[in-house]
Amino acid sequence: MTKINQLLPIDQIAQQCGIDHDHLIPHGKYVAKVDLSIIKANQNKAKGKLVLVTAITPTPLGEGKTVNTIGLSEGLNYIGKKAIACIRQPSLGPVFGVKGGAAGGGQAEVLPMETLNLHLTGDIHAITAAHDLASAAIDSRLYHEERLGDEFTAKTGLPRLNFDKDRIIWKRVIDHNDRALRHVTVGLGGGVNGIERRDGFEITAASELMAILALANDLHDMRQRIGKIILGYNTEGGVITAEDLEVAGAMTVLLKEAIHPNLMQTIENTPVLIHAGPFANIAHGNSSVIADRVALPLADYVITEAGFGSDMGMEKFFNIKYRQSGIAPSCIVLVATVRSLKSNSGKYNIKPGQPIPKEISESNVELLEIGAANLAWHIQNAKSYGMPVIVAINRFPHDSDEELAFLQQYALHHGAFACEVSEVFTKGGKGAEKLARHVVNACEQKSEIKLPYQSDDKLMVKIEKIAKKYGAKKINLSEQAKKDIQDIENLQLDHLPLCVAKTPMSISADPALKNVPIDFDIDISHLAISAGAGFIRVYAGNIMTMPGLGTNPAYRQIDIDENGQVVGLS
Amino acid sequence: MTKINQLLPIDQIAQQCGIDHDHLIPHGKYVAKVDLSIIKANQNKAKGKLVLVTAITPTPLGEGKTVNTIGLSEGLNYIGKKAIACIRQPSLGPVFGVKGGAAGGGQAEVLPMETLNLHLTGDIHAITAAHDLASAAIDSRLYHEERLGDEFTAKTGLPRLNFDKDRIIWKRVIDHNDRALRHVTVGLGGGVNGIERRDGFEITAASELMAILALANDLHDMRQRIGKIILGYNTEGGVITAEDLEVAGAMTVLLKEAIHPNLMQTIENTPVLIHAGPFANIAHGNSSVIADRVALPLADYVITEAGFGSDMGMEKFFNIKYRQSGIAPSCIVLVATVRSLKSNSGKYNIKPGQPIPKEISESNVELLEIGAANLAWHIQNAKSYGMPVIVAINRFPHDSDEELAFLQQYALHHGAFACEVSEVFTKGGKGAEKLARHVVNACEQKSEIKLPYQSDDKLMVKIEKIAKKYGAKKINLSEQAKKDIQDIENLQLDHLPLCVAKTPMSISADPALKNVPIDFDIDISHLAISAGAGFIRVYAGNIMTMPGLGTNPAYRQIDIDENGQVVGLS
Repeated sequence: MTKINQLLPIDQIAQQCGIDHDHLIPHGKYVAKVDLSIIKANQNKAKGKLVLVTAITPTPLGEGKTVNTIGLSEGLNYIGKKAIACIRQPSLGPVFGVKGGAAGGGQAEVLPMETLNLHLTGDIHAITAAHDLASAAIDSRLYHEERLGDEFTAKTGLPRLNFDKDRIIWKRVIDHNDRALRHVTVGLGGGVNGIERRDGFEITAASELMAILALANDLHDMRQRIGKIILGYNTEGGVITAEDLEVAGAMTVLLKEAIHPNLMQTIENTPVLIHAGPFANIAHGNSSVIADRVALPLADYVITEAGFGSDMGMEKFFNIKYRQSGIAPSCIVLVATVRSLKSNSGKYNIKPGQPIPKEISESNVELLEIGAANLAWHIQNAKSYGMPVIVAINRFPHDSDEELAFLQQYALHHGAFACEVSEVFTKGGKGAEKLARHVVNACEQKSEIKLPYQSDDKLMVKIEKIAKKYGAKKINLSEQAKKDIQDIENLQLDHLPLCVAKTPMSISADPALKNVPIDFDIDISHLAISAGAGFIRVYAGNIMTMPGLGTNPAYRQIDIDENGQVVGLS
Repeated sequence: MTKINQLLPIDQIAQQCGIDHDHLIPHGKYVAKVDLSIIKANQNKAKGKLVLVTAITPTPLGEGKTVNTIGLSEGLNYIGKKAIACIRQPSLGPVFGVKGGAAGGGQAEVLPMETLNLHLTGDIHAITAAHDLASAAIDSRLYHEERLGDEFTAKTGLPRLNFDKDRIIWKRVIDHNDRALRHVTVGLGGGVNGIERRDGFEITAASELMAILALANDLHDMRQRIGKIILGYNTEGGVITAEDLEVAGAMTVLLKEAIHPNLMQTIENTPVLIHAGPFANIAHGNSSVIADRVALPLADYVITEAGFGSDMGMEKFFNIKYRQSGIAPSCIVLVATVRSLKSNSGKYNIKPGQPIPKEISESNVELLEIGAANLAWHIQNAKSYGMPVIVAINRFPHDSDEELAFLQQYALHHGAFACEVSEVFTKGGKGAEKLARHVVNACEQKSEIKLPYQSDDKLMVKIEKIAKKYGAKKINLSEQAKKDIQDIENLQLDHLPLCVAKTPMSISADPALKNVPIDFDIDISHLAISAGAGFIRVYAGNIMTMPGLGTNPAYRQIDIDENGQVVGLS
């Protein structure tokens, strides 16, 4: 609670970054929504530079990407620049599961941490509610059409939609890690209890509505996108959209407040916008376009984070978010840790809830050098998009000077614009002073975005180009995947970019393949259309869209203390 | 939107009713949470009088109980008294289903209506999240204990809980009308996808956590209650609580903000506290004890509403809420309509989504007199609790003077302290001027609460006494109900009061029996324990804890207009 004492009232933070009172919607003392109408009000102001933070292939513990996104924004403030960080809202799944919260940490943390990690202003709950309203509407229509049979239209005045109950693609969602909901049968009990069919729940972060919230330009754009969502197919094989079911308006109304980004502050009073929370493995992994558009006229630098490694969130930043928003970053910051690169050597495994192998904590440049190939891969991958790439080594206490010196040299040798040790966890903005100066320099470089595929590439060509970027030798399409590709082409939706769902624990689609895998196959199990979000989901490897809880879940430690304060949340 | 122009900023409303800035947590311009610590700060202040609003047996359209609760608080202000209304938060289920919102209406409405009817400050979503965290934790424990078998404790350091998967009584919840989720199978798919078992979803209003939010005194009391929740039984027949599963702390943390009541205002700027939303048919149907305790030192009169007829929410107010809070009302206001009493005649049926039969809209004292027996029953039922009962006739445009005069005489003849026509919908507080004066007078009467059963009555005696109040001739217990009673007695929880789940559309448990049913049987299908909330749920008749959507659901009309304003929500 001492940390809270360092905070300023949120209207002061807003004032400092030029958000006037009329555009501020307070939610308690330290959180406010910023009315997105500020975008229009500021449309003629000069825009700041966008900086994209990505990472090497992480361990399951995470490598401090959020910490460094927050810390870099503090560092830019420290050297006299105006900076705003734009990050995603944490999901309750990981908070109560294994990873804990996603507020950063140490001197590079968003506060109040509990507010950020729990409900914030309810945006994720609003998405869950809007998503599951469509599910309830689907099953209700299925039931009433079957119950009333040929008399349905005469009795209700509505056209029959004729959902094919085996081809309803709109699963339900919930914001928890709940493996038992992955595959369910609904509508049991007969009679008035609906129509029996197989269904499943995904975590809310994977909802198409989450992607729409992150990609929409404004409320009307959101309304149009929601109308386009494909819920399922009718018995003749035609698509049924949310517009067809007349539920798109109500879904939009449920998201009417969620569309405004949330303003908070770091422990050093740097403003942070939090908005939308798609995961980067099973979704597109980037915070909202609206938050970026709100922030850019208010700051010299806007620092945003793309989830997991550069093969995941960063790739999706360029191919999904950038293609839609047209807002390019001026440089890329690639976060690496000695710990994770040693783990990438493949010789030691870091597992959540277990002690870190002591070999990883001992100075060992040889071990580091093996895993450093992963860093080289990510530098090259990020550079291939046309931007200068700065490596930020997120320093841990056990890291030796020798190891850090090796990595700096290694990164520069492999094409980094700069490589700097970041000590933001212990020192806050001061710990990112040099990093911030490199970022300023890099943002002055001329750059031109290069995208790995064209919109009008055939779907299979897009898949091949992305797989090639991973380093894959061969793509194996299941029969279902082949059918899905055919279906997408028939619907003339193959102009959409890809959103690959795969493990983040390897550049390949197999989490066991560490470092820089080569000559591997990629198995595509199926594809799915997000017509409202504007991408095609491609499922590679054995990837689950609903996590599970482990044997030692984080919720066990979380409680209130005798003063009513939250304990056990980090 | 013109209505919004009449509103005052919420901090002005707070100031007017004596809530200082330190206890106010703003959520936008027109909503704030009131920190419950204000109860302690005001503990030595004089307390106002509590007025309980109930109703006759309603039609599915509702009879304007909320309108009159709001309107009476405006009326008391109109005659120079300080009044605060305390009402429940609407569920999204009815909002998108058939009934529409629950903000009152006309000149007796809580504004902004959209905010109240949609997420408000997220309390219901927090309950859903906390509830379903326990569900995820149950299925996860079941899975890991089965997966690791005899090695579970050695590998995890945790004791085996040995859930009996056929006796997990903690269902999942969602805040929608979704019949397809009433009966589901979870854990399908084998392997890492959990353990297959039958489960079901209830609407969040029926969650024990909703009852706990409505009944808790403070955060620590809430924590203790959540720990006591019985989630299921182990294979030896013993109970497993949320404390046993080590999830009670995390559930409480998710409700840490929800525990503060929400302040809004009526169209006439009368303060309203909105807090918790248990339905009165499948739950205990009253807003929170905390809201009442916050309001009483701030006002001369606190008007609160108990859901559905006096056989439902009012009975539960006395036997559940009052037994726990010790806060007695000073009088009861019984809302009646000409329309509903005519419908209670049993000659015409009012159905949602269908035109009201024209006979009901025509002046017809004979028809009214038949159904007026229902009014007499509710007057007597309310009076039996020891309070003066004032009948408020909620006037509709078609009501004739002759009909209203008849009803006034009829009500007085059957024991009402007063009977007054209420015109709050069209006239606001002015339309309740006389009603308000009667309330002031009634609150000066000496009264002594009489409860229909004692805590130490045997469970079956309690059921018999309540059934007798309904007018039942005979109680039929299913085999399951008999087993449940035995089980509750074995657990020594039979000192708890009852929470009867039954239809609100009849005083009996059969919705087809209109007016004042006599000589009917009541079938009890099963009982269930809410050990944290502190009551025993008794399921009478064919009652569902998860509603369904009709053929013409309200969501079809709800949308945003070209200005981004909500349309179709009422």
